[in-house]
Amino acid sequence: MANDTLKIRRIAIDTYHENVAYLHRDCSIYRAEGFQALSKIQVSTNGAKVLAVLNVVDDTSIVQACELGLSEQAFKQLNVAEGSLVTVNHAEPPKSMDAVRRKINGERLDQNDFNSITADIVDARYSKMEMAAFLVATGQNNLDRDELLFLTRAMLDSGDRMNWHEALVADKHCIGGIPGNRTSMLVVPIVAAHGMLIPKTSSRAITSPAGTADTMEVLAEVNLTPDQLNDIVRRERGCLAWGGTAKLAPVDDMLIAVERPLGIDSQGQMVASILSKKLAAGSTHLIVDIPVGPTAKVRQMRQALALRKLFEFVGDRLNLHLEVMITDGRQPVGHGIGPVLEARDVMQVLQNDPEAPADLRQKSLQLAGRILEFDPDVRGGQGYAIARDILESGRAWVKMNAFINAQGAKTLDLHPGQLCHEIMAVSDGVVTHIDNFQMAKIARMAGAPMLKKAGVDLLKKLGSPVRKGEVLYRIHAEFPADFQFAQHLARQDSGYTIGCDEQILKSLIEF
Amino acid sequence: MANDTLKIRRIAIDTYHENVAYLHRDCSIYRAEGFQALSKIQVSTNGAKVLAVLNVVDDTSIVQACELGLSEQAFKQLNVAEGSLVTVNHAEPPKSMDAVRRKINGERLDQNDFNSITADIVDARYSKMEMAAFLVATGQNNLDRDELLFLTRAMLDSGDRMNWHEALVADKHCIGGIPGNRTSMLVVPIVAAHGMLIPKTSSRAITSPAGTADTMEVLAEVNLTPDQLNDIVRRERGCLAWGGTAKLAPVDDMLIAVERPLGIDSQGQMVASILSKKLAAGSTHLIVDIPVGPTAKVRQMRQALALRKLFEFVGDRLNLHLEVMITDGRQPVGHGIGPVLEARDVMQVLQNDPEAPADLRQKSLQLAGRILEFDPDVRGGQGYAIARDILESGRAWVKMNAFINAQGAKTLDLHPGQLCHEIMAVSDGVVTHIDNFQMAKIARMAGAPMLKKAGVDLLKKLGSPVRKGEVLYRIHAEFPADFQFAQHLARQDSGYTIGCDEQILKSLIEF
Repeated sequence: MANDTLKIRRIAIDTYHENVAYLHRDCSIYRAEGFQALSKIQVSTNGAKVLAVLNVVDDTSIVQACELGLSEQAFKQLNVAEGSLVTVNHAEPPKSMDAVRRKINGERLDQNDFNSITADIVDARYSKMEMAAFLVATGQNNLDRDELLFLTRAMLDSGDRMNWHEALVADKHCIGGIPGNRTSMLVVPIVAAHGMLIPKTSSRAITSPAGTADTMEVLAEVNLTPDQLNDIVRRERGCLAWGGTAKLAPVDDMLIAVERPLGIDSQGQMVASILSKKLAAGSTHLIVDIPVGPTAKVRQMRQALALRKLFEFVGDRLNLHLEVMITDGRQPVGHGIGPVLEARDVMQVLQNDPEAPADLRQKSLQLAGRILEFDPDVRGGQGYAIARDILESGRAWVKMNAFINAQGAKTLDLHPGQLCHEIMAVSDGVVTHIDNFQMAKIARMAGAPMLKKAGVDLLKKLGSPVRKGEVLYRIHAEFPADFQFAQHLARQDSGYTIGCDEQILKSLIEF
Repeated sequence: MANDTLKIRRIAIDTYHENVAYLHRDCSIYRAEGFQALSKIQVSTNGAKVLAVLNVVDDTSIVQACELGLSEQAFKQLNVAEGSLVTVNHAEPPKSMDAVRRKINGERLDQNDFNSITADIVDARYSKMEMAAFLVATGQNNLDRDELLFLTRAMLDSGDRMNWHEALVADKHCIGGIPGNRTSMLVVPIVAAHGMLIPKTSSRAITSPAGTADTMEVLAEVNLTPDQLNDIVRRERGCLAWGGTAKLAPVDDMLIAVERPLGIDSQGQMVASILSKKLAAGSTHLIVDIPVGPTAKVRQMRQALALRKLFEFVGDRLNLHLEVMITDGRQPVGHGIGPVLEARDVMQVLQNDPEAPADLRQKSLQLAGRILEFDPDVRGGQGYAIARDILESGRAWVKMNAFINAQGAKTLDLHPGQLCHEIMAVSDGVVTHIDNFQMAKIARMAGAPMLKKAGVDLLKKLGSPVRKGEVLYRIHAEFPADFQFAQHLARQDSGYTIGCDEQILKSLIEF
C-alpha cells in the first residue's frame, strides 16, 4: 500500500557502529509510540533492508511526519537515493539472542550457535546492548577452548578471506597495551628484504596513542585499494598498510567497538579476534608477541603461559603455524609515544643511528629472527644474526623506502608538536616503574593519534639514574586545550616512580 | 577560559534512557575526532553536569560548530537555559565498572561494590552497554543470595523511601508474564474496604499489552502528585495510581529499560527489582504472585519454589513480611487483553455481573483473602470468606468508585476498537493450550497499551469445547496498520491449540 510508505531522508549524524532511525512523533502512519523508543525497526525498500534503533523526533526541521530519517551509517547501508519510499516494520529481536541467553544461563554453545550469532552481528541485527550481552556472556572463563575454536571459525567465516597462493605467508601480531611498541615497522622490512612474503595490514589505534597504521601514515599513504595492496606485495614481498578497506572478519571490528569502551578484553575474545583476522588476511605463519609486566595486559607469567596454550590450541586446529614470544612489558618500548615520535624512533633504528632506542631495535630483531626461521632454508638459531645483518647492512632501510615510495611517500616532517611541557623528577634516585597505561593516556590527551605530532617523548627509562629536577619526559601538543588536558593528567600522576637501586634490581630480577 | 565554551542547544530528539550529545565535526575547540564517536563526554556549567554519549554531526542546521546539542533527556537533566555556555570534557568511565569487571571475572561483590554501582547508574554514568554488561554479569546463577541482598539494599537506597507511619502497609505484586492478570484492581478495593492501608502504585506496561496503571487510566486519572496520592490514601485507605512520579528505586527503572529489550530477566534481578520497589513505597506486608505454566515466566514448580526461597531470604532480612502464592499461569486471566478490555472485565467482577470472568474473580479473592489475614484481627483461614463478602455486598464496587472519583473520573467508554477480526477454530475439539506470549504479542501489535481500545478478547479458554469455525478470540484495533500487523501475526500462529479431551485433562493434572 502506497499509504504505508515514508520518504527516506539522510540525517547527517554519525552514530558510529549503531544504526539510528529518526521518526517524527506525529508520523501519521506508524505513530511513533506504537514502536516505542529503544525498540528496533526494520526499514525496507525494493529488497534492500536495514535495522536501526528508533529515536523519536519533535522537530520537523530534522525530520517531517512523512519522512524517515536515517543516520549516516544506516543510510549508507540501505544504499538508496534520498526521497525513496520505504516501509517500516517492527524488527524481530535477532533469533541468535536465544543462544546468547542460553550462554548466560551457563550452557555450552556449538558451532551452529556461533555461526548464527556472527551472521546476525554482520547483518547489523545486534544493538550495542546485545553485543555487550554477548561479550560478557562469553567473557572470562565462560568459553571452553572448543567453544573458542567455534567462535574463531565463525568470525573468520563472517567475511572475506585473502589467498596469496604461496605456501608461506608470514605475519606478526602483538596483543597490545605497550606504548611505542612499533616493531612491525622494523620486522616487516627486514623479513621482506630476506624475500619472505609478509603482507602486513594493521589497524589504527582505538584506545592506544598510536597504531602501526597511524604511525606508517606519517611516512606514506596507508589507505590502499585491494589492487594497489596486491601489486605492492607482489613487487616488494611486503607492505605496511591499513587493514580497514578489506572486509576481513568484520564481526571482529564490530565487537571491538563495544569491547573497548567497556574495558573488557577477555583472553578468549583476544585469541578469537587476532586469529580470525590473521587467517582472513591469508597468513600461514604467525608470531604472537605477549608482553608481560605490572601495567601490561598480561601481568603474570602464568597468565601468559595459559594464553599461549589457547593461541596454540586454536591456531593448530585452524591450520596456522603459530609461535608465541613472551616479552618484557614492564615499560613503553622506544622513546616516542604518538605517531610522529614513534616514526622518528623507527627511522633512527633503520638508519643505524646511535641515538636509536636500543630496546626497540633489540626486540624487533628478536621477532624478525623468529619469523626468518620459518624459512626452511634458515638454520634453527640463525634468524637473529640474519635479521641483524639485514638491518646493519642498510637493506631494511632500502626496503622501507621501497614500501614508502610504492604506497605513496609523504613530505617528511618528524618534528613533534610545538607546544612542549617537561615533566621533571621530584627526587634523586633511579626510575623503578613506568606506568604503560598512564603514559598512553597522557599521550592521548595531548591529541595522539588523531594529531600526528602530539604525544610523549621519554628521556628516561627503567633503571636510569636521575637527579631531582632532571627531565623525565616531554609532552608535545598542537592545540592549547589538548595541551592543558595532558598536563593536568601528568600533574595528577606522572606515571613515573623514582626509587633506590635495590628496587629496580628486584624488578629486573623478577622479570 | 571563555574560549573553551560552547553554547548549549536543545535537540528535539527523544533518545529514551540514554543521554546523547551532538557535536559538529568542525567544532574548533574540541575537534570531535579527539573525543571519538562512541566515547562519553561530560558537559558542565555552573556546578551542574551531565554525561552523554557523543554523536558527531555534519549538518549546521542541527548543530553549529560553536554549539553543543543535547537530546531531550540530557537537556532536561542539565536543566539550564538554551544558549548557556558549557564546557566539555572527556568523561571518565564510571569507577564502579571495575567492580562489574571483577564480577565478570567470577569474583564475589560486597555491599560497597553494589552501592557504588547503583550510585553511578543513578547519576547516569552508565551507558546502555555498561548496564547490559552489569545485568549479564549478575544474571542467572551469577549472584549468590547474599549478593542479591546487597543489590536489593543498594537499589532501595538509590532513591527516596516513603513512610506511611502505620504498622501495616499492605501490597501485592505479580512477577508478570500473564496477559489480562488485573487482580490488583480487585484486590485493592476489597482490602481498602476492609480498612487496611494499601497505597498501590503500579507501573505502565513495558513489554506487556497492559499494566495496572494503563488499565486504571481508562477509568480514572493515575498521574497523581505525591500530595494528591497522600490525601487519597489517607481518606480512602488505598489508591490505584501510577508509580512513576515518585523517585522510588530509580535504578530499577533504568535497568529494566535495558533488561526488557535484551529479554534477560534473571530470578535474582526480578527479586531485587520487586522488593526494592515495594520497600521504597513503604510496604510492610507483601503478597507475591508467581504464576507457573508452560508459557509463563516460571515454567516449572521447582523453579517457582526456588524463586520463593529467594524472595523469602531477601524479604526477611529487609524486614518485610512477605508471602508467596504460586498460581495457575497456563493461560491469560479473564477474557480481555488490552486496557479497555481488561477494565471491562474488572468492572464486571466488581458489579457481580454473571458474565464476569470467573478465573479473574476467583484469583483476586484468593489474593485479597491472604492479604486480609495479615490483619491480626482476622482469624487464619477466614480471609477468603471476608473478601468474598466485601465483593458480593458491593462494598468493593463502592470503594472502587471512591478511588475513581478521588483520582479524577474519566468519561466511561468501555467499547473496544471498531476494527475487529475474528479468529476461528480450525478443527473440532477442546482448547488444550493458549500461548500467553503470543496472545500478548498479538494484542501489542493491535496497538495496546498505547491505544486503550486495542487488544484481544478471548471467547474460549482452556478446556472449552469448540467446533470448527467457532470464534476463539477477537482482535480489536483502531488503526488499519496496527490491524494488519496483528492479523498477520495471528495468521502465523494463533496462539491456540485445539486437541482432544485427554490432552487437556493431562495438562490440568500436571498443574
